[in-house]
Amino acid sequence: MTASWSSSVSRVDSDKVFIRGYDLEQLIGGQSFTASCFLLLRGRIPTPAEVRTLDAVLNAVLDYALLKPGTVAARYAVSANPSMVAGIATAVLSVGKFTLAPEDTGHFILDAHARYVASGRSLEEVAVDIVADARSRKTRIPGLGHPRFKRVDPRAQRLRDIAVTEGLWGERAQLYELVHRAFTEATGQHEIPINDVGMMAVVLLELGFTPEEMTGLAVLSTLPGVIAHISEELQSGRIIRVVPDELVDYSDDRHDDLAAGLRDAGWPADDNEHQ
Amino acid sequence: MTASWSSSVSRVDSDKVFIRGYDLEQLIGGQSFTASCFLLLRGRIPTPAEVRTLDAVLNAVLDYALLKPGTVAARYAVSANPSMVAGIATAVLSVGKFTLAPEDTGHFILDAHARYVASGRSLEEVAVDIVADARSRKTRIPGLGHPRFKRVDPRAQRLRDIAVTEGLWGERAQLYELVHRAFTEATGQHEIPINDVGMMAVVLLELGFTPEEMTGLAVLSTLPGVIAHISEELQSGRIIRVVPDELVDYSDDRHDDLAAGLRDAGWPADDNEHQ
Amino acid sequence: MTASWSSSVSRVDSDKVFIRGYDLEQLIGGQSFTASCFLLLRGRIPTPAEVRTLDAVLNAVLDYALLKPGTVAARYAVSANPSMVAGIATAVLSVGKFTLAPEDTGHFILDAHARYVASGRSLEEVAVDIVADARSRKTRIPGLGHPRFKRVDPRAQRLRDIAVTEGLWGERAQLYELVHRAFTEATGQHEIPINDVGMMAVVLLELGFTPEEMTGLAVLSTLPGVIAHISEELQSGRIIRVVPDELVDYSDDRHDDLAAGLRDAGWPADDNEHQ
Amino acid sequence: MTASWSSSVSRVDSDKVFIRGYDLEQLIGGQSFTASCFLLLRGRIPTPAEVRTLDAVLNAVLDYALLKPGTVAARYAVSANPSMVAGIATAVLSVGKFTLAPEDTGHFILDAHARYVASGRSLEEVAVDIVADARSRKTRIPGLGHPRFKRVDPRAQRLRDIAVTEGLWGERAQLYELVHRAFTEATGQHEIPINDVGMMAVVLLELGFTPEEMTGLAVLSTLPGVIAHISEELQSGRIIRVVPDELVDYSDDRHDDLAAGLRDAGWPADDNEHQ
Repeated sequence: MTASWSSSVSRVDSDKVFIRGYDLEQLIGGQSFTASCFLLLRGRIPTPAEVRTLDAVLNAVLDYALLKPGTVAARYAVSANPSMVAGIATAVLSVGKFTLAPEDTGHFILDAHARYVASGRSLEEVAVDIVADARSRKTRIPGLGHPRFKRVDPRAQRLRDIAVTEGLWGERAQLYELVHRAFTEATGQHEIPINDVGMMAVVLLELGFTPEEMTGLAVLSTLPGVIAHISEELQSGRIIRVVPDELVDYSDDRHDDLAAGLRDAGWPADDNEHQ
Repeated sequence: MTASWSSSVSRVDSDKVFIRGYDLEQLIGGQSFTASCFLLLRGRIPTPAEVRTLDAVLNAVLDYALLKPGTVAARYAVSANPSMVAGIATAVLSVGKFTLAPEDTGHFILDAHARYVASGRSLEEVAVDIVADARSRKTRIPGLGHPRFKRVDPRAQRLRDIAVTEGLWGERAQLYELVHRAFTEATGQHEIPINDVGMMAVVLLELGFTPEEMTGLAVLSTLPGVIAHISEELQSGRIIRVVPDELVDYSDDRHDDLAAGLRDAGWPADDNEHQ
Repeated sequence: MTASWSSSVSRVDSDKVFIRGYDLEQLIGGQSFTASCFLLLRGRIPTPAEVRTLDAVLNAVLDYALLKPGTVAARYAVSANPSMVAGIATAVLSVGKFTLAPEDTGHFILDAHARYVASGRSLEEVAVDIVADARSRKTRIPGLGHPRFKRVDPRAQRLRDIAVTEGLWGERAQLYELVHRAFTEATGQHEIPINDVGMMAVVLLELGFTPEEMTGLAVLSTLPGVIAHISEELQSGRIIRVVPDELVDYSDDRHDDLAAGLRDAGWPADDNEHQ
Repeated sequence: MTASWSSSVSRVDSDKVFIRGYDLEQLIGGQSFTASCFLLLRGRIPTPAEVRTLDAVLNAVLDYALLKPGTVAARYAVSANPSMVAGIATAVLSVGKFTLAPEDTGHFILDAHARYVASGRSLEEVAVDIVADARSRKTRIPGLGHPRFKRVDPRAQRLRDIAVTEGLWGERAQLYELVHRAFTEATGQHEIPINDVGMMAVVLLELGFTPEEMTGLAVLSTLPGVIAHISEELQSGRIIRVVPDELVDYSDDRHDDLAAGLRDAGWPADDNEHQ
């Protein structure tokens, strides 16, 4: 039977584990978790600049109180099923279209850059075109805007500064910033910043990650906060958290008689037990 | 290479699917979903009495408003990640120790019945012993008590009536009821009923399911409600549901200066960037 | 504080549970699980024809041996974490773009029908146009084709017959069939059938469900099989299922010396421990 | 309405995010992700020794090829539902009783140490007693044994060396080692080592984490490998991974006639459509 799987991530060889070809025993104590994270995904040892930048990215969305749906969902979950594993999986599943998924921005930037490369025109001109197109097709430019932060998302700004300092600010990052500028100018909405998740995408692209890996890293970066919240909930001893009735507008049409409802729906009166 | 898997659940044979040996094409339109559910798990066609009883069990915990953590968790999840699949998985993960897991009661009854069989004594005597043991070891008897229902959980009572009527009320069911009676008499807590999940376990055991399958069926039975809530949330257009600040007591010690914190923790002042 | 939630699915009122306004105690033993499923989602008691048709849909994809990724994933999961709940959630998470998600077909049909309504032309003409557009834009028409079934997917055919017999075969169903016919004629690929998931979408649309609810019902319909497989795996006693080495083509570049790798990546030799 | 939640993990204050009281903007670029992980869970800035030790723990189980059920489950999942988020949640759900859950060992050590403190006897004596008790009650001592590694799990050994070097090897760690020694002596099974997950528990306990947090950190530490495998699977373009038929021993009793089966189960011949 031929091999139906192939993998170059790791290998277990008699009594040794190799991670991208490196002996795991040497990695333990040999480099930081952030560096190993880069090694596992990119397949090579990162430079110090890459580790410092990835560390900054992983710190960018550490936690966001009870204003992040996944955290709240996880706390509800473990109040009924007191399991760290179930709680973490719950929080992970709230990552998607509206939160913490830089992959949309990642794909947007890659597409924009491919358009630039094919165009033979300047970054500025292409950025203006892209914004005009998006506006005419009424599509959203991902990675922009935040409910709390106006003009500048300070976390995004900090991330940008570090990437620039570390020399990881290339053509694609510049193009996305030009798109942002073209957007605010075209719409007059100067208060709309590049948000934290958008900037994560920019910097992770410079570090060589795919859009899907970006979402994976975003999940990873929020996990310490998730674990902390689940631990706090478990230690609170709270059991079966519910939504208090006074916060809910329940509406229903009361039907006093199921038999009447069944008859009206065409069920024979004597046959109810066989339905 | 020898087979590393074995299964008797279903088989796909060129252009036919067989479910426990029955042609799927015949099952479509040939019997109810509830009957197929029994067939898949028990491996044989159920009797009419078994289908009516299983139907009753599957109706017993259809929904419980926003008073069930899994429902709330799922609605938070899809407000951020608008995906039916993610929402369902989230709701499933809230099933556990404190909600909707009849497997604990199932194992309890099986153990109690094995003790009865080995004892050569009456069901009543064994029930009294079991309660005495549980009280002396301070262990909980699963399946008893409900925050809203006193003396009788009407859903449980209805389920019991149907199982009795259908002739599915055997020795193990009787033993669990005697344990319940011995418990209320020993403690004087006469308001504590057998709850819906406890009664599900009793009846599903009479139908021949394993404790783990009981939990699976409990999950299945709540799924229509879960789907309805997720659909309602998705159609509401609500994005990124959070916990309003006025419902949270946030507490933290504010530290104005990270550099000072690092220094106090023993980090060399000039090496912060290398941490 | 104003209500931040609203729901009409169910309500718990002192000691009663109401499902879409009906007393849960009456539903237990009062109607089938399939009928309650319809009630929860559509908000009204179904007719006998609707229950028979929904029962057929729920039987259409009962199980598919170890040829369905979610089943296999769930069996791997419970070999490490022997939990019914974790196993079910795992299987649910494998439902998506390439399997069991009728929502894509549902949205496609709704869009096609809206185009028909706006066009003032015949169903046939609109179907031909839609196929021509899809081919020119190289987009996929969802719900067509199956790796095992040619010309006809017998499960889909059975489902169609039942819906037609029950009088649940309207304009949208006809339009989708015309799209299928236009597609096979335009491409000459006459062996491509409407598959089971595509036909589920057609019929569930006739029953009034939203595309997202369709995916929820598809998940529900596979759950008995999932529970059966997990139960079989748990009872097998198999612990920590892996992929045997002979089935994997592992490839890596072996690096004997981490220190050399770090040096090459620009890390100062004496600072490795601080990375 | 009074607050129904309380949390001290983080807080969002107008346009600032505070993590355990520290300004998130300062943390980005101010310390490593590993240090922030400690801060989030323990509520204070870690010392350099604590960061080095936690980094070692997080490197200890980076990846384990296709010999870890969660990795395989995740690759099956994304072959059907090509979503990084669904894949990660799938892998998380395979963490449990038989893999990667140091919480059992954590609870065991805490209980053992409480027994020691209460006993007034030596660590050695208590360790011998604990092993004798476990053997007489036939309970498993968690954290011991590995299918590949005999006498020493090299990853565990490396972790131990680092913890000792960093001065994080206290009474509880010593007690667990004495339990291990008493076990191998009592049973004569000298080849059984403390495994990687057992040693993670020992070291994480010294770092002050709760057993549940240990499992959270174990999940976190495997995430880079999980993301790498999912990315590899997504990039492979493999769709709908299945188990090849030649690897499965399918068994079923073929039933050619559903009608006969229904009749035998007691269903009236003319009533099949009402089942």
